[in-house]
Amino acid sequence: MSDMKPIKAGIIGGSGYTGMELLRLLVCHPGAVPACVTSTTHAGRPVTELLPGLRGETDLAFSGVDLSELAQCQVVFSATPNGAAMTYAGPLLDAGVKLIDLSADFRLRDARLWQQWYGRPHACPGLLEEAVYGLPEVNRERIRTARLVANPGCYPTAVCLGYLPLIESRSFDLEHLIADVKSGVSGAGRKASLTTALGEAADSFKAYSVDGHRHWPEITQELNQLAGQPVDLLFIPHLLPIIRGIHATLYGRLKPGQNPHDIDLQALYERRFAAEPFVDVLPAGAHPDTRSVRGTNVCRVAVHRPRGGGTAVVLTVVDNLVKGAAGQAVQNMNLMFGLPEIAGLKYPAFVP
Amino acid sequence: MSDMKPIKAGIIGGSGYTGMELLRLLVCHPGAVPACVTSTTHAGRPVTELLPGLRGETDLAFSGVDLSELAQCQVVFSATPNGAAMTYAGPLLDAGVKLIDLSADFRLRDARLWQQWYGRPHACPGLLEEAVYGLPEVNRERIRTARLVANPGCYPTAVCLGYLPLIESRSFDLEHLIADVKSGVSGAGRKASLTTALGEAADSFKAYSVDGHRHWPEITQELNQLAGQPVDLLFIPHLLPIIRGIHATLYGRLKPGQNPHDIDLQALYERRFAAEPFVDVLPAGAHPDTRSVRGTNVCRVAVHRPRGGGTAVVLTVVDNLVKGAAGQAVQNMNLMFGLPEIAGLKYPAFVP
Amino acid sequence: MSDMKPIKAGIIGGSGYTGMELLRLLVCHPGAVPACVTSTTHAGRPVTELLPGLRGETDLAFSGVDLSELAQCQVVFSATPNGAAMTYAGPLLDAGVKLIDLSADFRLRDARLWQQWYGRPHACPGLLEEAVYGLPEVNRERIRTARLVANPGCYPTAVCLGYLPLIESRSFDLEHLIADVKSGVSGAGRKASLTTALGEAADSFKAYSVDGHRHWPEITQELNQLAGQPVDLLFIPHLLPIIRGIHATLYGRLKPGQNPHDIDLQALYERRFAAEPFVDVLPAGAHPDTRSVRGTNVCRVAVHRPRGGGTAVVLTVVDNLVKGAAGQAVQNMNLMFGLPEIAGLKYPAFVP
Amino acid sequence: MSDMKPIKAGIIGGSGYTGMELLRLLVCHPGAVPACVTSTTHAGRPVTELLPGLRGETDLAFSGVDLSELAQCQVVFSATPNGAAMTYAGPLLDAGVKLIDLSADFRLRDARLWQQWYGRPHACPGLLEEAVYGLPEVNRERIRTARLVANPGCYPTAVCLGYLPLIESRSFDLEHLIADVKSGVSGAGRKASLTTALGEAADSFKAYSVDGHRHWPEITQELNQLAGQPVDLLFIPHLLPIIRGIHATLYGRLKPGQNPHDIDLQALYERRFAAEPFVDVLPAGAHPDTRSVRGTNVCRVAVHRPRGGGTAVVLTVVDNLVKGAAGQAVQNMNLMFGLPEIAGLKYPAFVP
Repeated sequence: MSDMKPIKAGIIGGSGYTGMELLRLLVCHPGAVPACVTSTTHAGRPVTELLPGLRGETDLAFSGVDLSELAQCQVVFSATPNGAAMTYAGPLLDAGVKLIDLSADFRLRDARLWQQWYGRPHACPGLLEEAVYGLPEVNRERIRTARLVANPGCYPTAVCLGYLPLIESRSFDLEHLIADVKSGVSGAGRKASLTTALGEAADSFKAYSVDGHRHWPEITQELNQLAGQPVDLLFIPHLLPIIRGIHATLYGRLKPGQNPHDIDLQALYERRFAAEPFVDVLPAGAHPDTRSVRGTNVCRVAVHRPRGGGTAVVLTVVDNLVKGAAGQAVQNMNLMFGLPEIAGLKYPAFVP
Repeated sequence: MSDMKPIKAGIIGGSGYTGMELLRLLVCHPGAVPACVTSTTHAGRPVTELLPGLRGETDLAFSGVDLSELAQCQVVFSATPNGAAMTYAGPLLDAGVKLIDLSADFRLRDARLWQQWYGRPHACPGLLEEAVYGLPEVNRERIRTARLVANPGCYPTAVCLGYLPLIESRSFDLEHLIADVKSGVSGAGRKASLTTALGEAADSFKAYSVDGHRHWPEITQELNQLAGQPVDLLFIPHLLPIIRGIHATLYGRLKPGQNPHDIDLQALYERRFAAEPFVDVLPAGAHPDTRSVRGTNVCRVAVHRPRGGGTAVVLTVVDNLVKGAAGQAVQNMNLMFGLPEIAGLKYPAFVP
Repeated sequence: MSDMKPIKAGIIGGSGYTGMELLRLLVCHPGAVPACVTSTTHAGRPVTELLPGLRGETDLAFSGVDLSELAQCQVVFSATPNGAAMTYAGPLLDAGVKLIDLSADFRLRDARLWQQWYGRPHACPGLLEEAVYGLPEVNRERIRTARLVANPGCYPTAVCLGYLPLIESRSFDLEHLIADVKSGVSGAGRKASLTTALGEAADSFKAYSVDGHRHWPEITQELNQLAGQPVDLLFIPHLLPIIRGIHATLYGRLKPGQNPHDIDLQALYERRFAAEPFVDVLPAGAHPDTRSVRGTNVCRVAVHRPRGGGTAVVLTVVDNLVKGAAGQAVQNMNLMFGLPEIAGLKYPAFVP
Repeated sequence: MSDMKPIKAGIIGGSGYTGMELLRLLVCHPGAVPACVTSTTHAGRPVTELLPGLRGETDLAFSGVDLSELAQCQVVFSATPNGAAMTYAGPLLDAGVKLIDLSADFRLRDARLWQQWYGRPHACPGLLEEAVYGLPEVNRERIRTARLVANPGCYPTAVCLGYLPLIESRSFDLEHLIADVKSGVSGAGRKASLTTALGEAADSFKAYSVDGHRHWPEITQELNQLAGQPVDLLFIPHLLPIIRGIHATLYGRLKPGQNPHDIDLQALYERRFAAEPFVDVLPAGAHPDTRSVRGTNVCRVAVHRPRGGGTAVVLTVVDNLVKGAAGQAVQNMNLMFGLPEIAGLKYPAFVP
């Protein structure tokens, strides 16, 4: 990469958690450089005020949103709340900029479904078809040539990667999938909120949105596509008193009549992900912990079949802000610009 | 109670978490008094060294195990590791003492099953039949007259209470129950252990013992009995980075052909637990958090049927050291001695 | 107390942390009853929505602020943000109600100093002289007869109690006191705030307001009064990633020429607090932890003189919401109404 | 560095926290390679079992301690408990290996003092004189040519760096220094211990070893040397419920007669550390948090003089396992082998 000019990247919404994480990754990226990072709230202030870890590494300051300035970038990451990216996606694409949207604006391909879950009409339904769902383990080739990438949600990343080999195997009952998922508080974003206050969420645990969560239609859409048929998924999120990390516990039953001994789950998973740089299948019997992926772009997976029975239990962990957001976005950028897929993403997790 | 002489209670194993919690509850109990509390490690030291919260409330000191002294008590709580209570249960019962065992020694009624899960022969299989499983919501009347109570495990309490109305309703498929449960670290007891060190377990989350946990046969035994037929339960425990608390997320599918609209889950649960002093069914749509039962003997329950589908999702929370151990043991003592069931157990939880 | 009619208590600002804690304590109080609890935000909702621990114990609902209704109470606790109590203190007192203010409105006796630290003129400076600073260990007799009690801040409680015997001994240099104090996040109140978000404050630690904190003039005023001369105190607060609890590490040097061997600090502290129901002096060599007072009205104290040198190091812990706020307010109420000082305040802390 | 052969490094005690952190840093180091890592407990097992974050990055396995194999390394890091390194330092140095000891064995230059604090005679007092105290900000040139480096303790690093400019300024009273320091639990090492169990240490806070801590003589020795005269330091450690991180709050009074306005503390600190790659002086008024250095080799410093008075308050934060242990050791290795001082140490911290 040393003889290439670094890719000029813009970030819209740089003072949220995913925006800050994009900044960290891009400042240290060998083939890209953050050229412009916007924040309505913090415009004018150096980014190191929010990210002291970058002191000495960058002089960048937050700026207001200026589409003509962003149009000078080769790629723009949109890390705003839902509903913003769809208002400027058209102009940016028209200006020849590639857009990676980390919000939910382009994740659902059905505009009516989007409206149903997000409570307003979609502003540019015409782009929904073109947007590529940015899960490289499924859509790598389409991402390479995409103008517009819908970066997956954090839960959908953990759930889809875990179910991928199960569904592709065609051996499992798709009508009774259960995803019992647990997320750290940073999944809710960087904002003042009583729900995720330390005084409220620490030393406690609870489920939430059991009756419906916006990531359910997104996951279902992707699993349907993988399966080539509708799946029936129960998706139950919980709030963990940790900062970063998602743990998905995924249940899938063998189809009736399928002999459990005919299928080697461990081999199935290892084979499926053998070439994947960011999916790590643990040895049989393992239990991944969320800290083992903290700060990294890795999804670790373990697969079990308790007491030799007919139900597979798949455990996956991701860092919701990296593989579940900013890291996956950079992985997508690498693919879109012909960089090595792992460029800028090889920090090892530290324990403890 | 004011004219009764307080019940003399002994505690074997008073320096573990359940023993310490028994002490806290008994020191403040209006109808009982801790007369003797043993600890091999701490013999001779005042109990307030471990429980500074009781400074000024009690002069009790830990003593060594002396069966003749314990035989002076009316009730003995055994809060030792598994395998100890079964060695002295016989002599204590013979001396006319009532025994409430908080270990697993008397929870399984089948001595061969016990040996299979606990790795040694049972020392007094003859008592297994007599022991009453101390879940008052199921066995209240038998507990009143029992000499020997097997106090339920923490997970079994949370899981059995949550499944109770479902199973009694006879409307659910008993072959595909899934209990995805999460426990704070105190469930592992008071001991030096790398697994539950703050440096290892804080700010992280993982599943464990996915391929088999000793609470599985216990839960299955009780659910089988409730159902009057064998159930098939998947039981998947996880380790929460919290001190106290269990959260069970329980899945149950309606039987094939059963119309979801024919069953009012909320009413079913409210009716079943209406008279229970320590089971609180939350309003429809609620998500109990573990902190709402911290330090208390309450089990809070919420029941959902996401998107009106055929699967019930039951959420239960207990404090593993209170309703899941010492509090339930005191509730059992109250029943066995004709005291008000709630005596000494009405501390409200504080938030935050 | 059984033949007295319970005292009717009102709470203004019942949905903050101190208001909620007052509710918990008053609902269980043997000699008082919460008759009215206001919350602008939650008016009309049952208090158990915020305090599930009180489900089954009270039917009370939040109401709007109605002075004529509050005037029916015998005592009103004001648990609002600073600046509110001073606007209705006059009318309530005129109506014959006793007022215990948990905000800072009546803590400083000098109206100009108040204005300097709180940024606006005081609304009823005439009441500042009458208000009694509600630290029973110092002002017990004056509290008994007070109409208006200024309940101390959480830091001032921990610092003043720790310095009390030192200052009274007249052996220490009052010009170089250093209070290095650490507080859990609930000290900031129940509100959405980025600073105390779990994602920001967990697994981290920092000092704050090193250059000036509003509790400094309050502490200084009280220590000056105790000493009968101006003291020079450095007060450095830090934010702990815990929910409840304050730990003060207090430094005081012997006066020049004072022989360290002439003073028995342990005896000094034990003697000073021997009759105090809520101050517990630990044995020599001890290190109190904040959890040992969690949920309780106790202040634990340990005193050291490292390596036999000339500097005393006093360690104190309090629960900022109990002895540092609501518990101390109830203690003051007990004194003001001739109830036993410990009434309703004897919950023991649980560990872990 | 690309044309140099990487330095062969050995690690003795690779399964403790500092050993694991050395492994993480060396596996990713551009100029060094871990050639051998010992662990008595884990000999034969791949290092990735303990460090899943390195899966795919290294095939190294733990081995038993074999001095002849270690003698093939150019540098050996000793990361064992105190008392081990002094038994093999001689042979390794004789074999031409450079030794960086992360234990306390070579930190005190006075063998009698060592014996007094560590409870046994020193095994090779003759090497104490030669050992260089590995704080690059003080001893950089001597480290470059050292054979034997005593890597500083975590507390001493945070305290000495913070006091350095104060002491060098000659304007402060050296007889009344107070270091109120707070450390996360990983400072106690990777071991099963009740004190640092999550159930015991989480959601709580306390001081410990107030009457004497082994880091006190180490700090005093270094400050004495800096000052050229004996200093009098009070050193009070506290246990934080966090995983990594030390926060030191350092107090120093101006000498009597010294006018506070004559000294610009901010400029003093900025000037002193301007050229230091791993000391970051924050802008005036700042409060560093421990998370801002998590996983990094940076020490952040802020300096205050509250209310313009005569006492400086210096705040420093380090990651006890990096700048306080393994990172500083790698920094020392870089100096000893003529590598860029920052090689392998430029990971930015992430927030949250």
